[in-house]
Amino acid sequence: MAEHIVSAYDAELAALRNRVVEMGGIAEKMLDDATRALVRRDAELAQSVINTDARLDNLQREIEENAILTIARRQPMAVDLREIISAIRVAGDVERIGDLAKNIAKRAVAISGQMQPTRIVVGVEHMSDLVQEQLKDVLDGFTQQNVNVAIDVWKRDGEIDALYTSLFRELLTYMMEDPRNIGFCTHMLFCAKNIERIGDHTTNIAETIYYLVTGSALVSERPKNDDTSFARVGES
Amino acid sequence: MAEHIVSAYDAELAALRNRVVEMGGIAEKMLDDATRALVRRDAELAQSVINTDARLDNLQREIEENAILTIARRQPMAVDLREIISAIRVAGDVERIGDLAKNIAKRAVAISGQMQPTRIVVGVEHMSDLVQEQLKDVLDGFTQQNVNVAIDVWKRDGEIDALYTSLFRELLTYMMEDPRNIGFCTHMLFCAKNIERIGDHTTNIAETIYYLVTGSALVSERPKNDDTSFARVGES
Repeated sequence: MAEHIVSAYDAELAALRNRVVEMGGIAEKMLDDATRALVRRDAELAQSVINTDARLDNLQREIEENAILTIARRQPMAVDLREIISAIRVAGDVERIGDLAKNIAKRAVAISGQMQPTRIVVGVEHMSDLVQEQLKDVLDGFTQQNVNVAIDVWKRDGEIDALYTSLFRELLTYMMEDPRNIGFCTHMLFCAKNIERIGDHTTNIAETIYYLVTGSALVSERPKNDDTSFARVGES
Repeated sequence: MAEHIVSAYDAELAALRNRVVEMGGIAEKMLDDATRALVRRDAELAQSVINTDARLDNLQREIEENAILTIARRQPMAVDLREIISAIRVAGDVERIGDLAKNIAKRAVAISGQMQPTRIVVGVEHMSDLVQEQLKDVLDGFTQQNVNVAIDVWKRDGEIDALYTSLFRELLTYMMEDPRNIGFCTHMLFCAKNIERIGDHTTNIAETIYYLVTGSALVSERPKNDDTSFARVGES
């Protein structure tokens, strides 16, 4: 291995980082497009989101393989090792964000022909906007290795969970008011849940940035305002 | 590093494998208990599942850290490297299975006081039994590095997805029949979805076993019978 010099190693790390940032850009666009497809009932746009997901899967596999090979070949220590581990973790979260956006797109296809109560759609769109902002910020934070951005994103996850909880209750109310809303609302329930889970993944990425920069864990318990799993709905 | 000898290395690999198997046992029990808690409306049992999850999270973190350190320290090649990567991947899937079982347990707490249509509960229980069987088989397959077991589990995922699709439709029907069912059915909808996702993770583990033993990917497309994301329910 004649190229076993610092600059080649730096290039490997930079390539890894760039691939992760590339994945992040794709996932951001998938979520944006999936949400627009949902709001505008645009089945064609939704289909393009579904088709994009395979690219994200391939990129993740590639990042994981290259990262492991770099670890085996270079035996990195301390901050370099953290950088490689972080790339693997962030790529994993971004891949799952892509899966969730794809699922939203599939549901956009399913409901594209149905009557949609505007208030519900607006609520889901608003939630998605918030999560998209989080996703953009956390990906910038990863690129800049900015721990303050990470902490800020991490703290804001509670807002998304609170929004999800209120949307969840609203959706159940719509279903109870008129059974004809049930099919549509069920899809929106899963869409809202998917967006909330994308929010969780942005929080994971924030935790990874913190680990990358400081070498320690952010904390053991994150702020959690989603209590819908415990919600005793429909009892009244 | 005086201990840089084969037997110490083997011991590291064995320890890694044992930890993953330990995680698998905990996750199996969590799913079994969460399902029983759901069926028997046992809030106490559900709470014990919720409390167990942190142990699984810690074990996963530990496995990941030890695996990465082993790679950096030993520079393993070929089959040994695959074994370490597989341990990381399986631990990741098992950790997510634990999360999903915890979510089922939370919902079991929520609906423990509500009227439950027996047929729905039986359907969810049946689905969980099938997935538990898959999980048990795939974890045995991992311990034995048995590629035939892996292929068998991988092929059976379609059955679970088909069951989920039929349960999904049945739940929507119940909701439409009587709005008082909506709260309960929504929780069951998410429980069924969680079980279906646990099935997906067992399939991931099957793919990892295949990669571990053969060094190549099982295939690019797995069998998929869950079409509920596309389901145009409530239109008729």
